[in-house]
Parts: sequence; C-alpha cells; structure tokens
Amino acid sequence: MSNRENVNDEARPGPGRSTCPVACTLDVVGDHWTLLVIRDLLSGSKRYGDLLASKEHIPTNILAARLKRLEREGLLERVPYNEHPPRYDYRLTAKGRGLGRAIDALATWGLAHVAGTVRTMPSLDDLTSAG
Amino acid sequence: MSNRENVNDEARPGPGRSTCPVACTLDVVGDHWTLLVIRDLLSGSKRYGDLLASKEHIPTNILAARLKRLEREGLLERVPYNEHPPRYDYRLTAKGRGLGRAIDALATWGLAHVAGTVRTMPSLDDLTSAG
Repeated sequence: MSNRENVNDEARPGPGRSTCPVACTLDVVGDHWTLLVIRDLLSGSKRYGDLLASKEHIPTNILAARLKRLEREGLLERVPYNEHPPRYDYRLTAKGRGLGRAIDALATWGLAHVAGTVRTMPSLDDLTSAG
Repeated sequence: MSNRENVNDEARPGPGRSTCPVACTLDVVGDHWTLLVIRDLLSGSKRYGDLLASKEHIPTNILAARLKRLEREGLLERVPYNEHPPRYDYRLTAKGRGLGRAIDALATWGLAHVAGTVRTMPSLDDLTSAG
C-alpha cells in the first residue's frame, strides 16, 4: 500500500479534532494524488483511462480508491456511458469544482518558483465556469 | 515512520517527470503537515514550541523534518534568538508566503463545505502583507 493511501477518512471535525478549515479541507483532499485527480477533472469529465494516462502515472489502485472517496465526499459524480460492461464518465460536482481556486493558486506558485514548469491547465476563469 | 513522511525530495522536474506546475508544487508542499506548518507561519514568525503546540498535534520528528525541508527549499528561514543552547525563530520567506493564496483558498473551501469549521486564519490581505 502506498504511503499516500492512509488519508484520514473523516472529513467532519469531531471532539478534539481541529476546526481549522485548512486542516479539515486537507483531511478530504490533502494528498498529492487526490489534488492531481481533481486537477485533471477541472477541465471537464474524464473516463478512467484518461485519468490513468495522466503523465504523473497514478497507480490504478490509488486512482480507484481516490475516485471512490471523492464520490463519497460529494466532489465528483459518475455518469454511466456503457452498461455491459459498466463504464463511467467522472465529473466534478460544484463542490469539487470549488477547489479550482486552490489548485490554480498552486499552479501559479509552481510557475513562479519551480524551474521548468509549464502551464497546461485552463485559466481560473475557465475552471470556475467549466461543467 | 509516518505514512506522510515520504514526500518526494526532488522539487525540480527531471527527464520524464511532470512539468505541470500543480504536480511540481505538490512535490514540494503536497503533504498535509507541510501545508499546516506553512499555515501557522503565515501569521508571522514562530518558535519550534509554538508550531508543536498547534492543535493538530504534529509529531515532533515530522515537524523537525518539515522545517528542514522548507528551509532547504527556500520557503522559510531560521533566525537565532538564543546562542546557548541554539534556538531559532522560523519565518517564511517571500517564496513561502507566496503559498498564502493557495492556503486561503483551501480555507475558503473548508468553510463552505466542511461542517463545524471556523476561520481562525488572518485574511488573505493580511497574509500577503505579513512579514
């Protein structure tokens, strides 16, 4: 199991847990792979294979776990495009697209501070209006 | 060792690595604890004990490793306040403070979507001007 597997499964603050909105957001999406999956979905709905083909080479078991978790948390929905065998398009809900501003800010920082990075994401305006 | 320990130590894209600025930013700061340490430093310089006292209870070995890494990456600097024994204030550089917009966006999302969260961070305007 990857060291990035064990993100906290509880998104809601409980007794003794932090009520900080940054900490609680990171409980939901605060691992590398989850944020990259959301990045890929910001430009529009994707199929499993599209997400797997992303150039960071997300392992298939991690991708499957992240998609399930994001669906459970209401950040994405699955839309069937084939019945036998069952196949789905994955697309962000409004709640999921709400992370566009944070991901855009991470991209802006990377472009400014990490040599060799190239903007390939849509602009923030496109992100926030994308369906 | 925590499952959050093994973040990639290479911030620069190499041959075959992603040039996506989101992915490269996450290589530097894309773990839960690192972003929480930066959150704490956004409001001003802190001592080791202040950071350890944050309510998410960061383990001391992870805090020490994250501070070293952030210093190595040029996101924070140590300013000595005691010589014997050596003690330091930790403060963000301009590069580190540049993550304020992303962290503010994560906070805004958490406030909107995670029940029970309470804003305790300074506003983005304060963050971007804080020394």
